[in-house]
Amino acid sequence: MDNQTIGVFDSGVGGLTVARELRRMLPAAPLVYFGDTARTPYGTKSPETLIRYALEDARFLIGKGAGLIVIACHSAASVATEALRQELRAPVFEVITPSIDQAVAKTKKKVIGLMGTRATVSSRVYEREIGARNDGIKVYSQACPLLVPLVEEGWFDARETRMIIKRYLRPLKNNGIDTLVLGCTHYPLLKPVIAEKIGKRVEIIDPSAEAARAVRDYLEADRALYATRDDRIAESERKGRAEARFFMSDLTPATERIARWFLGENVRLERDGPD
Amino acid sequence: MDNQTIGVFDSGVGGLTVARELRRMLPAAPLVYFGDTARTPYGTKSPETLIRYALEDARFLIGKGAGLIVIACHSAASVATEALRQELRAPVFEVITPSIDQAVAKTKKKVIGLMGTRATVSSRVYEREIGARNDGIKVYSQACPLLVPLVEEGWFDARETRMIIKRYLRPLKNNGIDTLVLGCTHYPLLKPVIAEKIGKRVEIIDPSAEAARAVRDYLEADRALYATRDDRIAESERKGRAEARFFMSDLTPATERIARWFLGENVRLERDGPD
Repeated sequence: MDNQTIGVFDSGVGGLTVARELRRMLPAAPLVYFGDTARTPYGTKSPETLIRYALEDARFLIGKGAGLIVIACHSAASVATEALRQELRAPVFEVITPSIDQAVAKTKKKVIGLMGTRATVSSRVYEREIGARNDGIKVYSQACPLLVPLVEEGWFDARETRMIIKRYLRPLKNNGIDTLVLGCTHYPLLKPVIAEKIGKRVEIIDPSAEAARAVRDYLEADRALYATRDDRIAESERKGRAEARFFMSDLTPATERIARWFLGENVRLERDGPD
Repeated sequence: MDNQTIGVFDSGVGGLTVARELRRMLPAAPLVYFGDTARTPYGTKSPETLIRYALEDARFLIGKGAGLIVIACHSAASVATEALRQELRAPVFEVITPSIDQAVAKTKKKVIGLMGTRATVSSRVYEREIGARNDGIKVYSQACPLLVPLVEEGWFDARETRMIIKRYLRPLKNNGIDTLVLGCTHYPLLKPVIAEKIGKRVEIIDPSAEAARAVRDYLEADRALYATRDDRIAESERKGRAEARFFMSDLTPATERIARWFLGENVRLERDGPD
């Protein structure tokens, strides 16, 4: 790959948790982000529409310099990944597969739990993909429609949030899961409470971190650019952090405040997107 | 009006609270409902798109026999009412104006509170319309993004719901409101908890009931069809309840279950909508 700029897109701000992990793991890689806040949510759109939007989003990022695409939206990842791989010359990564591989590798009791939006849970993509890898694994899914608005309210540690998470986790706990996939890019912001409520014996898989790790592994294998880990760290220390730009198709006064929580640092958002 | 079939549309199931009030107040009037579940939510769309969708929705209902249109969606009502009145020959009613008139009439201390979605609150349509009627009235607004998902979870009286409502109402209470507008068609399902938490001294205005009342008043003034209230009741008892049909542009297994909560009775949904 002769262009190491990473392009990340999502239907909104959630994908910034992926951008955050990429900035942490690959500080020397330039990054462009696109959040399609004008057309959010993607979870309720038809597959045809989602594929069209995902292609537009990816091409917008390529136009902004991206040489590698990360689909940071679960809905788009589940229906549009193949289309993007066929249509684009850039390598395409997404948030679902790496966390599924990780969950299948980690579960000892062969019982995996999934928290997700109603759209992700009813798509049954996790059941299908886990079953394709090992049909002896049981998957229990819990739709958690209150968690996205709780995160967007900023109630990360509120008593109400703690009670609601406990309530959502109860059936998963009763089914004896030993591995829990956070199937939505908003959920990493609730990870401390989720970890506390599910207990230490359950391994939590964060798709944002797993997706970033998959990109890092790919770039590290590309020896021409990333000779060794030490070289990379030395390079990053020499160069400092690479540039990152963040585009949103629609902006409200709340967007910048919320974006900061997801990215974990202050961020300047630019209004731009596919026409 | 020579066609008394009432057409009601919304971006989803919320407008069924308007349909419920219409069925209660005007049992002899046939009703057609359209919920645009395929293109929901409307709150995030641009005004141009919303006007186009609202026109398509209204024409779909007229094609199904409606002679009068009720816009049961706050976002569509706030931007598309005038366009519909110009483009359609049918009378057009909506959920915002009747509740504003009622709130202005009821407030004694001239301090009105509003609960709404983030989109409705940031549109400031209530402040503008109340100010146009009486600029001595103060309006305090509270965005309540968790209430729609709480209703759609069916947690009408859950402890979490009670705590969250109490939290949302606190600033309105501290500002000394004596009148509270439920600015979203989902909120009537939470009215018992809202009434308990805000206290007996605050008058609650339900836009779904106010919109239905405005339609009833209009039809009752149309003496040719609705000679007197007693005649109407007699007619309705003779004829039984008129037919009602419910169309949704997209259906999931959850939609029918949720629709029943909003309508207050069992309902058969049909998948249909504008092309």
